[in-house]
Amino acid sequence: MKATKYVLTEKDMPTKWYNIMADMPTPAEPALHPGTGQPAGPEDFAPIFPMNILEQENSTERWIDIPDEVLQKLAIWRPSPLFRAHALEKALGTPAKIFYKNEGVSPAGSHKPNTAIAQAYYNKVAGTKKIITETGAGQWGSALSMSCAFFGLECKVYMVKISYNHKPYRRLMMQTWGADCTASPSNETEAGRSILAKDPDCPGSLGMAISEAVEVAVQDETSKYALGSVLNHVMIHQSIIGLEAMKQMEMAGAYPDVIIGSAGGGSNFAGLAFPYALDKINGKDIDIIAVEPKSCPTMTRGPFAYDFGDTAETIPMIAMHTLGHNFVPEPIHAGGLRYHGMAPLVSQLILDDIIRPVAVHQKDTFKAGITFARSEGFISAPECNHAIAATINEALKAKEEGKEKTILFNWSGHGLVDLAAYDAFFQGKLSDHDLPQEQIDAALKDIESYPKPKQAT
Amino acid sequence: MKATKYVLTEKDMPTKWYNIMADMPTPAEPALHPGTGQPAGPEDFAPIFPMNILEQENSTERWIDIPDEVLQKLAIWRPSPLFRAHALEKALGTPAKIFYKNEGVSPAGSHKPNTAIAQAYYNKVAGTKKIITETGAGQWGSALSMSCAFFGLECKVYMVKISYNHKPYRRLMMQTWGADCTASPSNETEAGRSILAKDPDCPGSLGMAISEAVEVAVQDETSKYALGSVLNHVMIHQSIIGLEAMKQMEMAGAYPDVIIGSAGGGSNFAGLAFPYALDKINGKDIDIIAVEPKSCPTMTRGPFAYDFGDTAETIPMIAMHTLGHNFVPEPIHAGGLRYHGMAPLVSQLILDDIIRPVAVHQKDTFKAGITFARSEGFISAPECNHAIAATINEALKAKEEGKEKTILFNWSGHGLVDLAAYDAFFQGKLSDHDLPQEQIDAALKDIESYPKPKQAT
Repeated sequence: MKATKYVLTEKDMPTKWYNIMADMPTPAEPALHPGTGQPAGPEDFAPIFPMNILEQENSTERWIDIPDEVLQKLAIWRPSPLFRAHALEKALGTPAKIFYKNEGVSPAGSHKPNTAIAQAYYNKVAGTKKIITETGAGQWGSALSMSCAFFGLECKVYMVKISYNHKPYRRLMMQTWGADCTASPSNETEAGRSILAKDPDCPGSLGMAISEAVEVAVQDETSKYALGSVLNHVMIHQSIIGLEAMKQMEMAGAYPDVIIGSAGGGSNFAGLAFPYALDKINGKDIDIIAVEPKSCPTMTRGPFAYDFGDTAETIPMIAMHTLGHNFVPEPIHAGGLRYHGMAPLVSQLILDDIIRPVAVHQKDTFKAGITFARSEGFISAPECNHAIAATINEALKAKEEGKEKTILFNWSGHGLVDLAAYDAFFQGKLSDHDLPQEQIDAALKDIESYPKPKQAT
Repeated sequence: MKATKYVLTEKDMPTKWYNIMADMPTPAEPALHPGTGQPAGPEDFAPIFPMNILEQENSTERWIDIPDEVLQKLAIWRPSPLFRAHALEKALGTPAKIFYKNEGVSPAGSHKPNTAIAQAYYNKVAGTKKIITETGAGQWGSALSMSCAFFGLECKVYMVKISYNHKPYRRLMMQTWGADCTASPSNETEAGRSILAKDPDCPGSLGMAISEAVEVAVQDETSKYALGSVLNHVMIHQSIIGLEAMKQMEMAGAYPDVIIGSAGGGSNFAGLAFPYALDKINGKDIDIIAVEPKSCPTMTRGPFAYDFGDTAETIPMIAMHTLGHNFVPEPIHAGGLRYHGMAPLVSQLILDDIIRPVAVHQKDTFKAGITFARSEGFISAPECNHAIAATINEALKAKEEGKEKTILFNWSGHGLVDLAAYDAFFQGKLSDHDLPQEQIDAALKDIESYPKPKQAT
């Protein structure tokens, strides 16, 4: 029998997270205060995040202890299995060896609980009673809902309206875990009301939902905000993916030539890639690919600039690849990949040629996901199908070139709650276009008056 | 850190299935030919099943080799993890130790692929080109669709109409895996048309859908039928659950006082319970509980009798607990528990006091599932919530009595594709009644003219 899964026991779980800020060739530039434009310290973030999380946000410690209480909850599904995709390789007729890390085994079905558990725990310790957040596809909102249930915290989620309508099941997951979920933009906040006044049919965006969540979070000292991607502490929490994968690839006697992850805010990608990125910084030859949709091409076409993370311009500005905080992407079904910006750490590593971004068309991602499902069995989240599409491209390139090659990608979550998107694909209702240049120009205009980062593009 | 999961590697997977027919105190009674009423041989089943499966159906070999090709596909998710439910125990304040076997880790999300993979493989070997089946909640249909994709077979599924409408996502899973799914009763078959002529709004039943599938399967030599529960070979294939659990309970240093599984056709329950039932037959004191809905109380109120497995009376009669093959259960949301009959092997072991059946109310099962989700994280299939409700009852009894007790239940699948049922619960739309006596009387009338098994009740 050919080995299919490489499995670690919970005793083999990493007990420290990896923080790439200790090793970056060029340090990421500091966040800026939204009012003054000066570098923002922890105190500027204090109304929205607890101090223990802010310490991580700015840490340059290479290794950070994972608290026992967090490990205990992560053990519900971690270490996650690493798979060799024998059947996919056979279906493609490729000489490439394809491995994937299966983050879909968590109760919420994605990698998101890796950081949700940690954030709920740190908030609990800091005395937070209620966490407010936003969610795109609902992966993050459901992960945080579950984590809040575990630690006895209240949870409120603003869900991007287009996803709220496309994905009723994720709202029901949040409800099952005891959270309160509202479609954004909503009438519950200033930010929401002002958006609806201009456009009552607005489909929403992550930037808008963040503004709503932050507005509510700062109203009460025992309420805090939580973000499921983009920020440094999230990248740290997700590093457990790559740390486990390194042990498992060793068990398989393999080392990846290519690493692939889909990137919306950047966290599932970074989780797998950053521990390997350290090897690359130290001289290893690895092609590390971040995959995004052609209709929301933050990394491949967005400038590197200081921009706001939210629409209402209430939280500090960060240096990142961005399509502008007023960008409203078309309602593609990979809701988790509709964010206008990209994690500062991922953005910086793109500038330093550690990470190579690519963009793929929506229809190709569903075709890839169906090929994967019929060979490997698992039905993938639409976000994850982006990583699969890029993996298949690399595997077919290896076939053309007759080259052996080892590819490792992050299977960030299953798509069982996203099947309406597959339905749209089967019915031929999915569009398949590149972002028009006008929208890139609008982004440039959006950010032109802001401070420029050193490597501004 | 407290141990949460007990994990085996794929090298530890059982390589033989356990067949309880070798060890039953009273052998199960033979199936009867639908026309003659005489004991039916393999030849009577030959138009619908391939001969290699029929050999298993009648085997009294205690151990049956699992083919390598089957093991290779099972390795995608097996061995499945065994969990200690620390958080649920804490939430209940019970002295009981609760363990559960997680069968939701399969790509289809339930235990069903354990037999679907095996049946697809045996059909492939026997030269079958296309498999036709029925499905209730869609767990079986989706599992078979995936398995057919793995072995390059065509797949056609008749899905009980009420579930087809409640669970569009399962139809989409089948479509993603390349199968063709039709709501039953349909206009595609004689059986379907005759039912629709009498009742155009008929919500369907498993018995009806079986009739449709069998009718189509016998029309072509290279087409076969497959059943996801009830029959002996299915119970054999599912025994891998219990065989793994025994190894894992040993790792945990525990042995169950109570074993619990939900039972519709009986296969997930039997999968966990039968290897332990052998210990009970050999003198061990174990309470083995099969759980069913009060609204479809096959085991607790249905007589033990010879009855047809399908509505059109086309397949051989089997001796089982039954509500009569004309029974149409109310549209409860646990579609997998709506079958009028029960596996003959489970039925026989109830008569011999090896298995104790209990029935639970629908609302209690959802309450139990929500308690489980908020403590353990996983959102359960409505069928599985029946096992959780019985587990909670046993754990609270242990608390009342101040007794230590070890409970092991089968977490047969996740409910992420069944969230519409949770929605109905949240909205207070679920009914909660016992089956009226008239329907039991109708069953008795239904079967009174058929041959009587020796232990007829």
